[in-house]
Amino acid sequence: MKTFAALTLAAAAVCVSLPAAAQFAKAEDAVHYRQGALFVIGQHFGRIGAMVNGKAPFDAKAAQENAEVVANLAKLPWAAFGPGTEGGKAKPEVWKESAKFNEGAEKFQAEAAKLLAATKTGNLEQIKTAFGATANTCKACHDDFRSK
Amino acid sequence: MKTFAALTLAAAAVCVSLPAAAQFAKAEDAVHYRQGALFVIGQHFGRIGAMVNGKAPFDAKAAQENAEVVANLAKLPWAAFGPGTEGGKAKPEVWKESAKFNEGAEKFQAEAAKLLAATKTGNLEQIKTAFGATANTCKACHDDFRSK
Repeated sequence: MKTFAALTLAAAAVCVSLPAAAQFAKAEDAVHYRQGALFVIGQHFGRIGAMVNGKAPFDAKAAQENAEVVANLAKLPWAAFGPGTEGGKAKPEVWKESAKFNEGAEKFQAEAAKLLAATKTGNLEQIKTAFGATANTCKACHDDFRSK
Repeated sequence: MKTFAALTLAAAAVCVSLPAAAQFAKAEDAVHYRQGALFVIGQHFGRIGAMVNGKAPFDAKAAQENAEVVANLAKLPWAAFGPGTEGGKAKPEVWKESAKFNEGAEKFQAEAAKLLAATKTGNLEQIKTAFGATANTCKACHDDFRSK
């Protein structure tokens, strides 16, 4: 009975970790993938930030192109935080408080979509507001789930 | 006169490196950016490859989603190979033979777009053909421009 329970648990563990295993050959790949996607996002987001903060001239077309990359890539990193992919700068809380983590990831995607919509207006004030709201979702997750 | 020429050269050097400098705070960021983007591309491309090679069951929807990521991200890495961003696994030939490098980058983008179109047909044979053609553009560039 004990053996059966152990085997069931082992089988369940295999199933739980299948999504990540199916997508990434090894945990290290998942870490590289999410770090890569988030770095690319950060670069494009930062270019909008430079315009918003007056450190770069406002270029409506460039803002929209950057927001498109951010909104597109915003969907990607989260699948790479599957079970068994602990590592990098991710705190254990990513896996311990996964509901909260997923909620944060969804908020970011929603705000990134709004930022893209704002860049399409070509109105810098609207872009500033949407940029700030998106930046807050980055910060909230980084504070809770990324080690310094 | 000599000083003037030196200053002109220095100014020209600054101008030549402006595109990279304007987009990336430091050369290291450009290296991380292109490595990150290419790694994400490779992962999604590899998932189509697994289906094409019979190592994963064919899933038309997943193939299309992966091809969308590949086609979208295919545009990104090249801006991060600007002047002054030598490093990583990139061979000096990237900068010495930039016309050839850019041609390779464009071929890849064209084939990635065809691969996306093929996945939209849901026809595995068409996807196989387009996958092979795209993979050849990856290989050609890696052979010439990436150190082992």
